Amino acid sequence: MKFSAIPVNIYKMKQIIIASTSTVHGSGYLEYLLPQIEYLFSKSSTILFVPYARPGGISHEAYTNTAKKAFSKIGKSVKGIHEYNHPIDAIKNAEGIFVGGGNSFLLVKQLYKYNLLLAIKNSLSIGVPYLGTSAGSNICGLSIGTTNDMPIVYPPSFNALGILPFNINPHYIDPEPSSKHMGETRETRIKEFHKFNTLPVIGLREGSYLYINDEKIILKGDLSARIFKHDLTPYEIESGSDLSDLN
Amino acid sequence: MKFSAIPVNIYKMKQIIIASTSTVHGSGYLEYLLPQIEYLFSKSSTILFVPYARPGGISHEAYTNTAKKAFSKIGKSVKGIHEYNHPIDAIKNAEGIFVGGGNSFLLVKQLYKYNLLLAIKNSLSIGVPYLGTSAGSNICGLSIGTTNDMPIVYPPSFNALGILPFNINPHYIDPEPSSKHMGETRETRIKEFHKFNTLPVIGLREGSYLYINDEKIILKGDLSARIFKHDLTPYEIESGSDLSDLN
Repeated sequence: MKFSAIPVNIYKMKQIIIASTSTVHGSGYLEYLLPQIEYLFSKSSTILFVPYARPGGISHEAYTNTAKKAFSKIGKSVKGIHEYNHPIDAIKNAEGIFVGGGNSFLLVKQLYKYNLLLAIKNSLSIGVPYLGTSAGSNICGLSIGTTNDMPIVYPPSFNALGILPFNINPHYIDPEPSSKHMGETRETRIKEFHKFNTLPVIGLREGSYLYINDEKIILKGDLSARIFKHDLTPYEIESGSDLSDLN
Repeated sequence: MKFSAIPVNIYKMKQIIIASTSTVHGSGYLEYLLPQIEYLFSKSSTILFVPYARPGGISHEAYTNTAKKAFSKIGKSVKGIHEYNHPIDAIKNAEGIFVGGGNSFLLVKQLYKYNLLLAIKNSLSIGVPYLGTSAGSNICGLSIGTTNDMPIVYPPSFNALGILPFNINPHYIDPEPSSKHMGETRETRIKEFHKFNTLPVIGLREGSYLYINDEKIILKGDLSARIFKHDLTPYEIESGSDLSDLN
């Protein structure tokens, strides 16, 4: 009996960090998360960086340099996906993937343009470690329908990777009772989302992150997170909670 | 010589109020703007209300009742567009139109669904008075690309009415220097917009509104507004400024 070749990493488990933010107040880029990132990418020497979300509209090169500086502190090389002629192959061959924050509409538009969503999803399912921050976390949900970003470009869909069975609201922020501003609070916005969508949403405060190990999804970081379920009162979950069954 | 019939209001001038918000802190719905609304709709006895933006996801009926209460104070009737079988005809026959705030994505999706954008634009161009607040103001710009809203539904396009030759950012809010939140400031978001779009944007603070009289666009209210032009440093304009040439 003969068996066809199986990729060596097909038996690996999912290893994913989905962080609310790249940077917490008073700290450098990715600094608060470096030990976890080092562990996540312990078997990867070069990380493929996806700079498409371009925070503040900075160039792919400038953004990749920022990621390079942070990863150099843990002895890892970084290469930007824009440096490759064939982005799909870059994803397929990546030892580790980091999708940085910025604008979720722009990020998703580029991922559709280069037909990368399925490629990323496949890589993650066979155990290629993945780090997402902010917009790079948002796309791990079912859609970008709970992003905080401005719709500066029109993507062909709001559907995202669906690594998680729910949606992310990164940079979650509690209502400010003393505010005189009449714009909607974050909670009001997510409640509006639930008038037209039934999937759960997790409000991830800055400094919080989800750690996916195989099929387990655990809330990490110092803070609690806020869970919004369709037709239910929102509630808090403590760090360490298992979210594997949130759907 | 014979002439075909010309609608009686074809010689009228555009009469439009585009307000940052329906409600300022510590005041009732539309209260701060009632004298101006009374003047705007002085020749209209019934106002057609478009409740599609559904703030907080409230029903068309509940939202229309809110509008009815406010307009009853100036002796005007209000009818919701959802009460009509043919929304296009409702627009065509309206003596005055009010598009309320809520979610811009939802509003635009509904306007496309019922094919109402052109009908509204036509009515406004022949002098039917129009009031927009928040999302209802956002759609007066060239696109909803500078909305603050959450993308809770996917509209077929971000293109809007284009009554103005620029975009609106309603509920404009200045950066809070003491904030420890790492989410983007409004100014950063609009700067990101300008990396991918060249049209000007006006940041309208709560309490500010634009008054369009014929082809003149004037900033009204107590506050200054912030102008964002592609590749230029943002700047303030005082209340009373003429924005007719901003494009």
